[in-house]
Amino acid sequence: MAKVTLKGLAKTLNLSTSTVSKALKDYPDINAETKQKVKELAERLNYTPNSFAVSLRMKESKTIGVIIPTMVHYFFSNVIDGILKEAEKRNYMVILMQSNEDYDLEKKQVDLLLNKGVDGILISLSNKTRDFNHLKKIIESNIPLVLFDKIAKTINCSKVLIDDRKAAYDAVSFLINKGYKRIAHFRGDLNPQNSIDRFLGYKKALLDHNIDFDPSLVYICNNNSDFSDGYENARKLIQDHGNGVDALFTVNDLIAIGALSYFNENKIKVPERIALFGFSNWFMTKITTPSLSSIDQNAFKMGVESTKVLFDEIDSIHKGKKIEFKKIIIDTELIIRNSC
Amino acid sequence: MAKVTLKGLAKTLNLSTSTVSKALKDYPDINAETKQKVKELAERLNYTPNSFAVSLRMKESKTIGVIIPTMVHYFFSNVIDGILKEAEKRNYMVILMQSNEDYDLEKKQVDLLLNKGVDGILISLSNKTRDFNHLKKIIESNIPLVLFDKIAKTINCSKVLIDDRKAAYDAVSFLINKGYKRIAHFRGDLNPQNSIDRFLGYKKALLDHNIDFDPSLVYICNNNSDFSDGYENARKLIQDHGNGVDALFTVNDLIAIGALSYFNENKIKVPERIALFGFSNWFMTKITTPSLSSIDQNAFKMGVESTKVLFDEIDSIHKGKKIEFKKIIIDTELIIRNSC
Repeated sequence: MAKVTLKGLAKTLNLSTSTVSKALKDYPDINAETKQKVKELAERLNYTPNSFAVSLRMKESKTIGVIIPTMVHYFFSNVIDGILKEAEKRNYMVILMQSNEDYDLEKKQVDLLLNKGVDGILISLSNKTRDFNHLKKIIESNIPLVLFDKIAKTINCSKVLIDDRKAAYDAVSFLINKGYKRIAHFRGDLNPQNSIDRFLGYKKALLDHNIDFDPSLVYICNNNSDFSDGYENARKLIQDHGNGVDALFTVNDLIAIGALSYFNENKIKVPERIALFGFSNWFMTKITTPSLSSIDQNAFKMGVESTKVLFDEIDSIHKGKKIEFKKIIIDTELIIRNSC
Repeated sequence: MAKVTLKGLAKTLNLSTSTVSKALKDYPDINAETKQKVKELAERLNYTPNSFAVSLRMKESKTIGVIIPTMVHYFFSNVIDGILKEAEKRNYMVILMQSNEDYDLEKKQVDLLLNKGVDGILISLSNKTRDFNHLKKIIESNIPLVLFDKIAKTINCSKVLIDDRKAAYDAVSFLINKGYKRIAHFRGDLNPQNSIDRFLGYKKALLDHNIDFDPSLVYICNNNSDFSDGYENARKLIQDHGNGVDALFTVNDLIAIGALSYFNENKIKVPERIALFGFSNWFMTKITTPSLSSIDQNAFKMGVESTKVLFDEIDSIHKGKKIEFKKIIIDTELIIRNSC
């Protein structure tokens, strides 16, 4: 099939190419009916603007779109900080949106960004996103897409993430090497990939060090942004296992701090009686009593690197070069403090 | 002098009005030389588009700009959360920028947003902003401007803020009514208005309750986002006053938690030996040991209300109505926990 051109669309609709072009760009001097007619045909024929038109648009927009699941989160604040600083260096503007972990909203936001004509899009997917047609739409529109942190493995685009399995493996191996043997795990929900990977890292560290995996030492925190999940599961852990547990590795710091709060209230000494290891190196882990060992995810760096990859792709399109997708693993770091 | 019109510009330059209009809007089908000629003349004659043209532009942009001093801050995360959710309701997009407390950057960002043609701008000023010409430029461009939290009193625009003086007054009065008499204050830097107002509220509460104001009980935290300032000043406070102090009110929660950490380490019992009251109701105040009394600033509500006011003004311009500036005081709330 021949490539659909602006001229072809114009001819089919019996309009001037200039009118069709303006209609596609939503210029105010074209009436709504014409715009709809043009857009419908363009969509039906899967029309994509030629690279010259794209590069003109590029010069105009200087804007990227960012969708994150939630704003009030230390990790994402730091990622956004990195994105904004990197964008600033290039005089790019950032349109920020939060999906509130809502798939329909995420989908709608992608449409808004595409209609706005942003030069590229960064997304950390909502936990509820299982269908990826909205991502495919971005790719088909020839707009660079970079997924970070919460990614979709099957989507063919650049990705920036940490190695959750390795990070968890390293933390649990550290505990084992310190002499702890009965290590519990408070895992996240069953679905999100990072919750699965952290659990698998935990399990592999045990097996590699010849420690039996005991499923009764694994507790699920259904709402893994909730402090009280950690508190409640700590209560259950002590009730179920008493002295049969000597360390605890949690899926994130908030859960760890919930557990710590239970231990402190009940005079269960950390780390003497039970050691504690969190995940994320959230700001407050430095200032709990005792301070909490954790895993630094380098959120700021993730923001910076994601944005750099996106700009590389925008530049490639601008120059008419082929985009080569990258997968970047951001280093994590064990931060050892007084809790183990 | 007669009002400069699009027609007038076109006649002077011997161009069509359509070309002039497109040149001003940076349409890609106008060449760079023409654009420059048109823009220079428009600027020289101080041309402002008529309200119909403005309303057309309005229909196109559906974007507001937001400048905050810093991203990695629980208060601002919550404000942004409110802004994004309110904008989402109206299908508006939000361009987010952070000034990093840098006046020059803030000024540049205002220019970027104006060039982008956003429909309105929300700003929380950097601590270093003393000159307000960039704000006047927004107002002269007929773009709605709402200042929130860190405002400039002399600028004629809508403002959304809390009553820092009253909030501090209420907190210190609460301590006095609980029987505390020797109340220290860890204040913020000398310059920012909220640091000044919180100090004045503290002082007024003492005087209104017939307690002498003792300047030796006031300590300055120069870097008021630093936990260690609170820790260090707590050390000095106990060294200087020993048992001559029974309560402490701090300019923010981070300072309070720094102080709490010193007290806990040195077995100075809170609240038995010294009561503690923070400011901001930062997430972690719930989960310190003991939990920390604080003042909730309703950051989310501040974001929502600021955005509502901005949309009202955008609507007014759209309808050709006069904008009436508002000053909205967001309620604060004393949150009493175990530290007093």
